[in-house]
Amino acid sequence: MSRITLLTDFGTRDGYVGAVKGVISSIFPGVLLDDISHDLDRGDIHGASLALERYWNRFPRGTVHLAVVDPGVGTERRALAVEVERRFLVVPDNGLATPILASGLTWRAVELEPGAYLKPPESRTFHGRDLFAPAAAYLARGIHLSRLGSAVSDPVLLPQPSVRREAEGVVGEVIVRDRFGNLVTNLDGGLLDGASEVEIAGRRIPVHQTYGEVEPGELLALANSDRRVEVAARDDSAARLLDVEEGVSVRISVRSQASPGLHPTAPSGPFDDRGP
Amino acid sequence: MSRITLLTDFGTRDGYVGAVKGVISSIFPGVLLDDISHDLDRGDIHGASLALERYWNRFPRGTVHLAVVDPGVGTERRALAVEVERRFLVVPDNGLATPILASGLTWRAVELEPGAYLKPPESRTFHGRDLFAPAAAYLARGIHLSRLGSAVSDPVLLPQPSVRREAEGVVGEVIVRDRFGNLVTNLDGGLLDGASEVEIAGRRIPVHQTYGEVEPGELLALANSDRRVEVAARDDSAARLLDVEEGVSVRISVRSQASPGLHPTAPSGPFDDRGP
Amino acid sequence: MSRITLLTDFGTRDGYVGAVKGVISSIFPGVLLDDISHDLDRGDIHGASLALERYWNRFPRGTVHLAVVDPGVGTERRALAVEVERRFLVVPDNGLATPILASGLTWRAVELEPGAYLKPPESRTFHGRDLFAPAAAYLARGIHLSRLGSAVSDPVLLPQPSVRREAEGVVGEVIVRDRFGNLVTNLDGGLLDGASEVEIAGRRIPVHQTYGEVEPGELLALANSDRRVEVAARDDSAARLLDVEEGVSVRISVRSQASPGLHPTAPSGPFDDRGP
Repeated sequence: MSRITLLTDFGTRDGYVGAVKGVISSIFPGVLLDDISHDLDRGDIHGASLALERYWNRFPRGTVHLAVVDPGVGTERRALAVEVERRFLVVPDNGLATPILASGLTWRAVELEPGAYLKPPESRTFHGRDLFAPAAAYLARGIHLSRLGSAVSDPVLLPQPSVRREAEGVVGEVIVRDRFGNLVTNLDGGLLDGASEVEIAGRRIPVHQTYGEVEPGELLALANSDRRVEVAARDDSAARLLDVEEGVSVRISVRSQASPGLHPTAPSGPFDDRGP
Repeated sequence: MSRITLLTDFGTRDGYVGAVKGVISSIFPGVLLDDISHDLDRGDIHGASLALERYWNRFPRGTVHLAVVDPGVGTERRALAVEVERRFLVVPDNGLATPILASGLTWRAVELEPGAYLKPPESRTFHGRDLFAPAAAYLARGIHLSRLGSAVSDPVLLPQPSVRREAEGVVGEVIVRDRFGNLVTNLDGGLLDGASEVEIAGRRIPVHQTYGEVEPGELLALANSDRRVEVAARDDSAARLLDVEEGVSVRISVRSQASPGLHPTAPSGPFDDRGP
Repeated sequence: MSRITLLTDFGTRDGYVGAVKGVISSIFPGVLLDDISHDLDRGDIHGASLALERYWNRFPRGTVHLAVVDPGVGTERRALAVEVERRFLVVPDNGLATPILASGLTWRAVELEPGAYLKPPESRTFHGRDLFAPAAAYLARGIHLSRLGSAVSDPVLLPQPSVRREAEGVVGEVIVRDRFGNLVTNLDGGLLDGASEVEIAGRRIPVHQTYGEVEPGELLALANSDRRVEVAARDDSAARLLDVEEGVSVRISVRSQASPGLHPTAPSGPFDDRGP
């Protein structure tokens, strides 16, 4: 059984997603179509990339992930198909696949071009239907990547927020607020081993392992389900409580005992009870 | 063909539902996944339970219903798999399945536990992906309920709103406002046989059989498609017109002719033309 | 593989769509269900008809399109199944299929009636579940249209907005604003051949072939992916920038060089470089 997942900013009510599904199923009538989301913010490549990162390799090998947030449709931006870890991505070349392409995994990519399988797009404004959908359908049918276009080695990558190591800790930033108001950062969850607090927006947030360790409404920092540092509030929204946006700095004081001036009230005991 | 339905409060844009679908399809590549909803209000166990009640037994035998509204993730709340009427439910043990478990049907339940099939959850904050999704996939594949955990006989049940019988009628309450602004009550639709009016928020609403029997914008009470008493407005929202919330009392004057003081303007004629 | 697509105004959170999917899959357990949209505005037959037009014939032959926006449920409005171009539509008889039925294609329609396959509806308020869903399931299973009811030759059609030819051009109107704020008109995209401008809301909008030909934030008119004239803004919302609603007039000055008074600043050169 072959599956194609769909992630777009098309909304559903205009029927654009319907047209995409129609084109795919006309080429591959038995394919299973799994919606991921169609209500991404318009043009939000960054949000799409973070969503895609969350599920792409949870699906079985052979799955094709169609992800179209494409503000550059009708310009010279390329259209890509990528093979990575035996899954496939079909995306505009605008950075949407950055978390996967920049992760150190081995990948191969081609620029989608009219040829034996792909026809010249029927329109210049709806490549989701006219170019990405057919490419996804053919890949799901088992057509080899190289039959869809020429190799590409320099896909567009989004700038990645940096992680700075400082004397008193490690500093990253909030990269996304999720539906629950959880603040997901670009910091590896392992950095919380031995840490007791996280600093954000002038507040010190205690480190815990799960929501249930604090009272409802209280803030905590934890390694989330994707092993990233996350600032959350039990049964509440950390984004609302802290009133912060993407990009806000988050600091982990890894050696808080070495900077008493910075952490006057921090506990001084050993933290290794939370070690791996 | 095996189907799994999905009901969550995850939203779709963060990719959490995608991760759940990926885990399921990795365990059972050919499974059919049917979205029910992912935009329940965060933590709205009550709303989830009423939605689940509406569809669970419309699906064919063997269907697995995954329903995850799980504010207690990361606490000691149990995770359940339930077999009832040859369908399966996979739910947190927080009352989400109350309308089914408290309906008088025979059911069997187990607490999901790591074992031959289920692994220890990868995270403590995303059991939808790490525990409920694999359990649903194995049940859909035909693995026996008892292989997923130990029997449970005392699932958490939500308190059910009461129905009071009074001298002049029966009193229940609004349990949910649906998308159309219809006010669904906990009163059995059969109670409307012989009734001419329903009282709510100080208003008397005439009883009809369907929306088309009143003019657009007018209120009516009827036995709805799930055989519950419902207060609705044709082509309009009863919730808005009456400005009421869940929990508001609804009274059916079953013997209106016996209480002239209460119904000074009620018609006094026979009502049995609407009898069963 | 048989597919059924679903388009409704039910929303998803009440479980009504779940009930529809359950009924369908009980009749046809292996059917593939493809959501199109469930968040159409309540009762928006017009919007549903335009969405349906966008995808119905993109799907393979044999596909059944269930589309239920049904403010008339519980009145005498008929329920229809239609066969057209070897696809099937299952719709209330309220004009929802107008763009297809009025397109000049050959179609056959029946009024859904209880009989060998369809049972009398369980409710008078939820025909999506009780009547349309079973009809769609049986059609997907290959049951002949004529087994579901009696022939109908006079389906309800929505009034179609007119196109007026005037001395100085062609005048149509905005028929829908899509999610991106694009203003889709009832004018055929071919009318833009040789035109340099479109007039809307007192503004003159230059004609281009794709979004990338103007700067971000700028307005343009183009033949869209469905070959209709559309007024759009690159990376922005034309609906917002122009502050217009459905129904607003749109004029194409096909012979702008013949009316200098109307187009004092229009370029006077040849336009055939944009010809087909």
